[in-house]
Amino acid sequence: MIQTPYLLFLGDAPDMLAAKVAIGIRDWRPENAVGQFRLEGCGADLGLTDMTLAEAKAAGAKTLVIGVANRGGVISKEWKKVLVTALEEGFDLAAGLHNLLRNEPDLVAVAEATGRSLHDVRVPEVNYPIADGKKRSGKRCLAVGTDCSVGKMYTAMAMERDMRERGLKATFRATGQTGILITGDGVPLDAVIADFMAGSIEWLTPDNEEDHWDLIEGQGSLFHVSFSGVTMALIHGGQPDALILCHEPTRSHMRGLPEYTPPSLEDLRDTALPLARIANPACQVVGVSINTQHMTEDEAKAYLAEVETRMGLPATDPYRFGSGKLVDALAAL
Amino acid sequence: MIQTPYLLFLGDAPDMLAAKVAIGIRDWRPENAVGQFRLEGCGADLGLTDMTLAEAKAAGAKTLVIGVANRGGVISKEWKKVLVTALEEGFDLAAGLHNLLRNEPDLVAVAEATGRSLHDVRVPEVNYPIADGKKRSGKRCLAVGTDCSVGKMYTAMAMERDMRERGLKATFRATGQTGILITGDGVPLDAVIADFMAGSIEWLTPDNEEDHWDLIEGQGSLFHVSFSGVTMALIHGGQPDALILCHEPTRSHMRGLPEYTPPSLEDLRDTALPLARIANPACQVVGVSINTQHMTEDEAKAYLAEVETRMGLPATDPYRFGSGKLVDALAAL
Repeated sequence: MIQTPYLLFLGDAPDMLAAKVAIGIRDWRPENAVGQFRLEGCGADLGLTDMTLAEAKAAGAKTLVIGVANRGGVISKEWKKVLVTALEEGFDLAAGLHNLLRNEPDLVAVAEATGRSLHDVRVPEVNYPIADGKKRSGKRCLAVGTDCSVGKMYTAMAMERDMRERGLKATFRATGQTGILITGDGVPLDAVIADFMAGSIEWLTPDNEEDHWDLIEGQGSLFHVSFSGVTMALIHGGQPDALILCHEPTRSHMRGLPEYTPPSLEDLRDTALPLARIANPACQVVGVSINTQHMTEDEAKAYLAEVETRMGLPATDPYRFGSGKLVDALAAL
Repeated sequence: MIQTPYLLFLGDAPDMLAAKVAIGIRDWRPENAVGQFRLEGCGADLGLTDMTLAEAKAAGAKTLVIGVANRGGVISKEWKKVLVTALEEGFDLAAGLHNLLRNEPDLVAVAEATGRSLHDVRVPEVNYPIADGKKRSGKRCLAVGTDCSVGKMYTAMAMERDMRERGLKATFRATGQTGILITGDGVPLDAVIADFMAGSIEWLTPDNEEDHWDLIEGQGSLFHVSFSGVTMALIHGGQPDALILCHEPTRSHMRGLPEYTPPSLEDLRDTALPLARIANPACQVVGVSINTQHMTEDEAKAYLAEVETRMGLPATDPYRFGSGKLVDALAAL
């Protein structure tokens, strides 16, 4: 539906964490990213070629994808100038912001005049049901985190790739804009109406073959007070058979909440598992996924070994060392 | 904003639990309820005079309030006939259903032709912020339940009345359609977009005098897989200083979920308190509120005594025996 390949718009993202959408596209569908577009003061860099709109157009780009997520999702004046020009130069636009492209009258007017498309992947297109909690066939794995932005999507994406390479039946189930932009399908959970959150996840992960695994993208954290309700709905709507604990060990406070200290992996296990067992009494914590991007390779290996001993669970950084251990654990369930 | 008094529409409610909205109005603002309107097969009865629209009009009723909540909130054809006639006979309509009055073209057309108003109290009228988790001044108490519809609203309403009678500063904070219809103000939490749930509760319970208590209406249950995300957002957005545990001891399964058994009061305490302490480390469980409507008075008293011994907490049925014990516990904090 969204035309590829993309030019990835990074805007004035303060840091790499804010460019999660663009990073995800680069890492999981690199063939779709011809370059990056950055404004002055941008603190993010994907390592792709910096391109003007004209250069990207000449390189074949069809859609300008807004690859940054702002708190509150506001489209600034600086951004707007680029987006209008992009439409005029023949790009479609795609975004997963709260502030919808289709609600910006100037963008709508230019898109209509130029015949271009505005894709808001964050907007639910389905009337989701209220969750009924009934047991579904097939297996489900959910990534839960000590914090937001600790690698839950990466973990599920990497496991899908590894499982398919092994000939196992697996489907990544996107619950956020990055995943939806990458896979073209999913539930934009943070934009779903409260009463239908759990039902939307039941809808996303329906009855399936007994040996099929849904790998559900996690959102938020039970310990992140801004978004914990979203996480709770994933745990109960997803009724997972397996939980993967995700953690970024160098973080000193919860993302966006300077007063809040991240919990330990033990805290996460002891909080998430009893809640998951309300919906699925057979649920197990099967492994740990550590985001070691701020550690040297030696530090990362030592930390993973320590976690394995302490938690009695396989631990890996799926991006750095592959997700093989986590797939082994799922296969052994 | 909504003109009083009301005629309470019970429709074809299968039972009294489905008539929660109407019961709340009758019990907390009886002067606003001139009578009830029931369709054939209605299983609910408020003990009010059954009236035709014409009789209610003659008795002074200004607004027909839809006093029943259906799963999914669909306006049936049988209901529609009554609602159209009510508009034609000069009533405003008020409802808290998911399926909005304003989205029904026939109702909108008749309301415009007759100059009547359609009030959808469920629809958020505010752009709520994302929660920032910052500590707020003043005190907050939240009712949490083992299940949905166990008396959380009643508990907070009764405590507000008792606290005001004692000269204490207290404000009931409505988070559902019944509370909003009764008080004329609040957050329709189940209709709020997922990302803004906790923020809407921060907005509803802002900084206040140090000796002021917000009595926050609970929603759903951490143990009800359809709505647990909403409950989670209340616990973290409300950052309560005090929790009241609410329970209906005769229920054999979770409301609407025949496969799920209600948890014990101990399960609720041990699940809710650690989650609440993420947002407010000083949070305490201060008391237990039991809905004893399906017990004799002797049974109720024996059960409450047993709960007090077992839990080491004051326990009462606020509707039957008053909320004095719970107010004492808050005052002692």
